[in-house]
Amino acid sequence: MAGAKEKKSEPIRLGIIGSGLAVKWLHWPALKRLTDKFRVVVCCDVDPKAAQEVARLAEQDLNSPNVRVATDYREVLASDDVEAVLLSLPIHLTAQIILDAARAGKHVISEKPLAGNLEHAQELVETLRNFKNVKVEIAENYHYRRDYAKAKEWIAAGRIGQPFLIQMVSRFWTDPTTGFAVTPWRQDNQYRGGIFADAGVHQAAALRELGGEIEQLQAFSKETHPVMGGIDTVVLNARFRNGILGNLVFSGAAKGPGEGLHIFDIIGTSGAIQISEGKAVLTEGAGKDAKVLEEFVDPEHDGGYFLEFENFYNAVRENAPVVSTVEQALKDWEIIMRALDSAEARNVVLL
Amino acid sequence: MAGAKEKKSEPIRLGIIGSGLAVKWLHWPALKRLTDKFRVVVCCDVDPKAAQEVARLAEQDLNSPNVRVATDYREVLASDDVEAVLLSLPIHLTAQIILDAARAGKHVISEKPLAGNLEHAQELVETLRNFKNVKVEIAENYHYRRDYAKAKEWIAAGRIGQPFLIQMVSRFWTDPTTGFAVTPWRQDNQYRGGIFADAGVHQAAALRELGGEIEQLQAFSKETHPVMGGIDTVVLNARFRNGILGNLVFSGAAKGPGEGLHIFDIIGTSGAIQISEGKAVLTEGAGKDAKVLEEFVDPEHDGGYFLEFENFYNAVRENAPVVSTVEQALKDWEIIMRALDSAEARNVVLL
Repeated sequence: MAGAKEKKSEPIRLGIIGSGLAVKWLHWPALKRLTDKFRVVVCCDVDPKAAQEVARLAEQDLNSPNVRVATDYREVLASDDVEAVLLSLPIHLTAQIILDAARAGKHVISEKPLAGNLEHAQELVETLRNFKNVKVEIAENYHYRRDYAKAKEWIAAGRIGQPFLIQMVSRFWTDPTTGFAVTPWRQDNQYRGGIFADAGVHQAAALRELGGEIEQLQAFSKETHPVMGGIDTVVLNARFRNGILGNLVFSGAAKGPGEGLHIFDIIGTSGAIQISEGKAVLTEGAGKDAKVLEEFVDPEHDGGYFLEFENFYNAVRENAPVVSTVEQALKDWEIIMRALDSAEARNVVLL
Repeated sequence: MAGAKEKKSEPIRLGIIGSGLAVKWLHWPALKRLTDKFRVVVCCDVDPKAAQEVARLAEQDLNSPNVRVATDYREVLASDDVEAVLLSLPIHLTAQIILDAARAGKHVISEKPLAGNLEHAQELVETLRNFKNVKVEIAENYHYRRDYAKAKEWIAAGRIGQPFLIQMVSRFWTDPTTGFAVTPWRQDNQYRGGIFADAGVHQAAALRELGGEIEQLQAFSKETHPVMGGIDTVVLNARFRNGILGNLVFSGAAKGPGEGLHIFDIIGTSGAIQISEGKAVLTEGAGKDAKVLEEFVDPEHDGGYFLEFENFYNAVRENAPVVSTVEQALKDWEIIMRALDSAEARNVVLL
């Protein structure tokens, strides 16, 4: 069992597989705050320059001396001094490499989503049941958002009465000339669902965080973006098991002012909660009698990345339960894939 | 043929059948601006006090001398001096009285929706084909909104590129202690669809105004309101014939600050239009490069009522085409009724 022989307080010796933008942009700020908990041993990428760059960054920022560089992930998995791997891979490669890592006895924290389609994701989750000594966490940061946690606390305390409607709007423009969208595998559509699968899986996680499990859903979809491959725009209706209605309007091809619109409303019989980027506002009543009961602003809103890595450390070192398990990630992914099924077959699907 | 013997310039001699809030609150401001075009002859209501009140108002505000009062609508239809009737009736009575009016040779302007269910609405439209000399207009004011007309003009001119998503949010709280919601027939649910049918039919009209005809739709629905009968909350996905995706979140049971949220976004490949209560804003581009191209504020936004009555006058006196025909209203109503079908059967329905 990897890590079993380590002292509890020692940093996890990390191999980074996939040294692209996710590591540098999303994970780095969290890792820089966790240098007592993670030490990078090796950085890997098919592009040696990318691996070299992240290796240098790790030496500089993460208190990690002499970071090795690799271009073949199997070399990382074969390294005895690597306890755990951080995977940030093209979606269609993720499932296989998670499995190879588990087989090599390495703990895994991997970027979402689990796989390039639902079948591969299901197979992965099934197979991982045989690797009980390996911790696998899917870096679905929305499962760690403090604004959602606060909203759930308010809902559980009955502050909006009985919730009956969750409305999510996520509309933004994917600029294909900059950032994540430049990555060839995102434009080439080598996984199912395009921008909707890649980015919308966060909204699926948010729907589950705020409303619980979905029982039935229906969607229509569209490919509109002139450059990005696959589905970019989806309208999705959901019925949660508890009877709440859900609605998601997602478009990664929507031009409009501002940096994009990401607003989640939870409506209850006596009030409502609105969540936007680290802020949650609880209101009671309607119209001119409505009043704000509480406002929560996450003072260190980072989308959940810090708590995500902290959870992984605690899982590996303290045997704490993983919050964003592969089972959770499978349920998130199922919403996306079944929405695509629904849009193709023009029917209502059961989950 | 009613009105045929009238001089072109003479006001239409109107009988008002149903002297409730719609007449006083919605129609009156428009009628007060059209005293040269309408003269009230008789006011009718099952409640003689209501009829008397509107009769007095007509004498006072509408240049209408000696307005008679009736409690039986058949008396109005039998009156030779009545050329046209304005119907504002409980939904489940509307279809029958429209038809009786047409049979009596009276032109009709009637509040929406057409009927208490789809079958009655279809029968009505079918039967009215035999009454070609009678003008029938359904007072669906959304078909006359200038903000929608402006948005349609922008779309037709390619100002947002190719439109691909229409998102409508209509969330408000129906206070059962005041206004329209107090009316017993609204609380008792004697027609199909509750608040969703009564108020949401406007959104159906808006969807058609802005997106064209709907080909497929799916909805989930809910009864949440503690007092109002029937469906009050619906999430609805649509595919228009032209491939545009549509989404409507409707709730007449949603508490929240402000007088209610009614926002319609039309997203195109190069820009977007947002419409809210008489205002339409056209933007181009995304993010920080986005810019407002044009803002339209209807200087006399009244929801379309003035143009609706003016159209009726012109139809009767000048043989102008009716804009909000029964055929149009049937299509609006079909969206609502088929959404309820979809929610009950848990399927996608074709229109």
